[in-house]
Amino acid sequence: MTEVFEILSVKEKVMDSLERNDNNSLTQIIDSLSSKEIVHLIGHMNRVDQIKIFTLLSPEDAAEVMEDIPEAQAVEIIEDMEFVDVAAILNEMESDEQADLIMELDDEDAAAILNEMDPEEAADVKKLLSYEFDTAGGLMRTEYFVYRENLTVQQVIADLKKNAEEYADYTLKNIYITTSKGKIKGVLHMQDLLIADEETRISELISKELMMVNHNAELSELIFFFDNHELFGVPVVNDDNILVGVILRRDVLEAESDKLTQEHLESQGIVGGDELRTMPIFTRAKRRLSWLSVNILLNILAASVIAYHQDVLSSVIAMAVFLPIISDMSGCSGNQAVAVSMRELSLGVVNPSEILRVWWQEVSVGLINGLVLGLLMGLAAFLWKGNMYLGLVVGGALATNTIIAVSIGGTIPLILKGFDVDPALASGPILTTITDMIGFFLALTFAAMAMSHLGGI
Amino acid sequence: MTEVFEILSVKEKVMDSLERNDNNSLTQIIDSLSSKEIVHLIGHMNRVDQIKIFTLLSPEDAAEVMEDIPEAQAVEIIEDMEFVDVAAILNEMESDEQADLIMELDDEDAAAILNEMDPEEAADVKKLLSYEFDTAGGLMRTEYFVYRENLTVQQVIADLKKNAEEYADYTLKNIYITTSKGKIKGVLHMQDLLIADEETRISELISKELMMVNHNAELSELIFFFDNHELFGVPVVNDDNILVGVILRRDVLEAESDKLTQEHLESQGIVGGDELRTMPIFTRAKRRLSWLSVNILLNILAASVIAYHQDVLSSVIAMAVFLPIISDMSGCSGNQAVAVSMRELSLGVVNPSEILRVWWQEVSVGLINGLVLGLLMGLAAFLWKGNMYLGLVVGGALATNTIIAVSIGGTIPLILKGFDVDPALASGPILTTITDMIGFFLALTFAAMAMSHLGGI
Repeated sequence: MTEVFEILSVKEKVMDSLERNDNNSLTQIIDSLSSKEIVHLIGHMNRVDQIKIFTLLSPEDAAEVMEDIPEAQAVEIIEDMEFVDVAAILNEMESDEQADLIMELDDEDAAAILNEMDPEEAADVKKLLSYEFDTAGGLMRTEYFVYRENLTVQQVIADLKKNAEEYADYTLKNIYITTSKGKIKGVLHMQDLLIADEETRISELISKELMMVNHNAELSELIFFFDNHELFGVPVVNDDNILVGVILRRDVLEAESDKLTQEHLESQGIVGGDELRTMPIFTRAKRRLSWLSVNILLNILAASVIAYHQDVLSSVIAMAVFLPIISDMSGCSGNQAVAVSMRELSLGVVNPSEILRVWWQEVSVGLINGLVLGLLMGLAAFLWKGNMYLGLVVGGALATNTIIAVSIGGTIPLILKGFDVDPALASGPILTTITDMIGFFLALTFAAMAMSHLGGI
Repeated sequence: MTEVFEILSVKEKVMDSLERNDNNSLTQIIDSLSSKEIVHLIGHMNRVDQIKIFTLLSPEDAAEVMEDIPEAQAVEIIEDMEFVDVAAILNEMESDEQADLIMELDDEDAAAILNEMDPEEAADVKKLLSYEFDTAGGLMRTEYFVYRENLTVQQVIADLKKNAEEYADYTLKNIYITTSKGKIKGVLHMQDLLIADEETRISELISKELMMVNHNAELSELIFFFDNHELFGVPVVNDDNILVGVILRRDVLEAESDKLTQEHLESQGIVGGDELRTMPIFTRAKRRLSWLSVNILLNILAASVIAYHQDVLSSVIAMAVFLPIISDMSGCSGNQAVAVSMRELSLGVVNPSEILRVWWQEVSVGLINGLVLGLLMGLAAFLWKGNMYLGLVVGGALATNTIIAVSIGGTIPLILKGFDVDPALASGPILTTITDMIGFFLALTFAAMAMSHLGGI
């Protein structure tokens, strides 16, 4: 409770500064907060106060706060701010973060903000925006050390000293060497300049193997690149080997985390991007409904199997107790198999053409688990009504459907991936609809077959 | 299909080298593969061949392959290898990776392998193992540049040149300065040595603010640290400010990805760690069953509500069609709310004491979505049987239960987190059990109330 209490007292202080338009005290409070506290604070303010914070702070400080809060929230706030204020803040951010935010805005807003920005910064952003999301070009930064090959060590050191302040913000300390046309030639580390003679041309110092990635390289290729090379960053080149940016390992790792998060949210039915509870209620409701309404149709489809066999149910009403269990348990078993396939796909240990092997490996587990679950469920049914046939019908249906569920669950992500459909989004609904339909069909068909022994239960 | 074909032909070549005990050709093939291809190759071999690869390759090459494959698989292979072979390979790995693997072994194997390892390497590993998993101490590395404060620039440069080969593997290029007792005093960058006079003592070059983290800092603190500071790595100190290691941003980001993955797997019912299909069938079946058997008991508990109201069902058999739909749709709505709460918890925008606010924000979405889903479902029920009361009963139950489901789904992760129970693991089963019970109760109670209008449907 202390933590909340402190945050609340901080919020009061912030509101007080906002009321008095006191930039100094606001800056002081914000500087004293960790990024976690800032996220929490901004999340608990209304839009008017949020905007006031961003306009009252200096653009540098505002940019830092903007980088701390979740992207989905930053975009919401930006959409309600004046273009000129947004542009001033964006000018202070790193190129890849500028592009990430502007990409989420609608085209008109984006154009208006780019128009107000520093022309050089705006040009960098436009360059990044021209690339596909989650490619090297889309993830790269445009801040890095680059010198022409004909310079001497002395000239480079002089430049490093002269622009020390600007360069302090450059995250990657590698120095890239290019031809006068901008083609990449090599890379130096700061310590290479240490050992060298001042008059040496930097082109003579190039010795290390030069790694680079194409601007169109995809996220999965970048992940594997950094898995294989012990580097903090790598230069990005276009098809003519012209240096266009650098991509850092951290940016790739962060993009990977974002992708994992997005896949998880999609698998749980949060679609159309991240949801925060500070978003407008109707936006949240609409996005969730888009998923739920597909599911309700699929559910009605599955339940139509029960409706079709209603005569069996009316003779053996006890079966109605078991239908939701069979549906839910098959979903659980199938989802485990989906999760393992999604994991194996992302690790790269399986690919879409190996459906048969995966299917066989799931069937073997499904046989064991189906048997155990079927026995458990059959026993419960038998004990409840004292009717062995009810146990056989229910247990047999669950056992069979477990095997079917893991078969579908294990293979459907590979099939979807093979057809280039997002498996995180579609695997779950397809799985549960098919297993529900088959499960209901099996249970009610088995019951019909054993009808003479089940009468009146 | 080409990709698989190539991998298969690579596999044949590898099997051929193994048969001929041809270390040269094996090394050549392995060197030519990307880490993704290695993962795929090793995953498709049996244990005997996997072990042969690791013993035939030089320890350096074997260590690289070991680092490429998924950790769960590496542990399986290690468990079947000779201790002395494992020790030789581990000697070539970085300290944090050594510790990650040894931590997964049983105590006897771990002790035997540490015994065979290079004593200096083994001591580093033991130091890392003494820390909690996912703390700064558990995630740190022990390879970094460190010099006593009384050395001169010249002495440091001389040492850098002398040990250039060993140091080439050091990922972090920062130089840490300590007192003669090992207390941390400051940090230099390689370029600081560039600009300085050779006779200067390095202690005089210290100017930048020194950041450090305590060895007991938790993952969430480390994530926020690197969010707030534009650094590749930070020194780790014990309670006496003695430098004990360095932690890199990438190690923190990778630990975060691992945590996201684990939470996702747990939420889908894969418990007890990562599952790969190369693991033994009984291990996989047993681990999945541990989760399924809890779920089947919870399902039986929920279905007992239906059993209790069996008399209602036998009068209005059509209700049996809707019970699985109400169960499934409430689960969908509730899981969306769980996913948003888990996300907000991990972003730090909400904490366990804010249950009331979260509940209210979910109820408002639940009202809209409950209304829409209830209308849809009620309409479907009405159209099917032409009975308005059936529509009201079914739609009313689904609408009410949707509001209940999002209320529980939104708040249960916060409650579990407040009691220090893993919300990724427990939220789903608790949610579906409660919403199933309430949903069945509502549907059958509403049906009982409208019984006179529903007779014989």
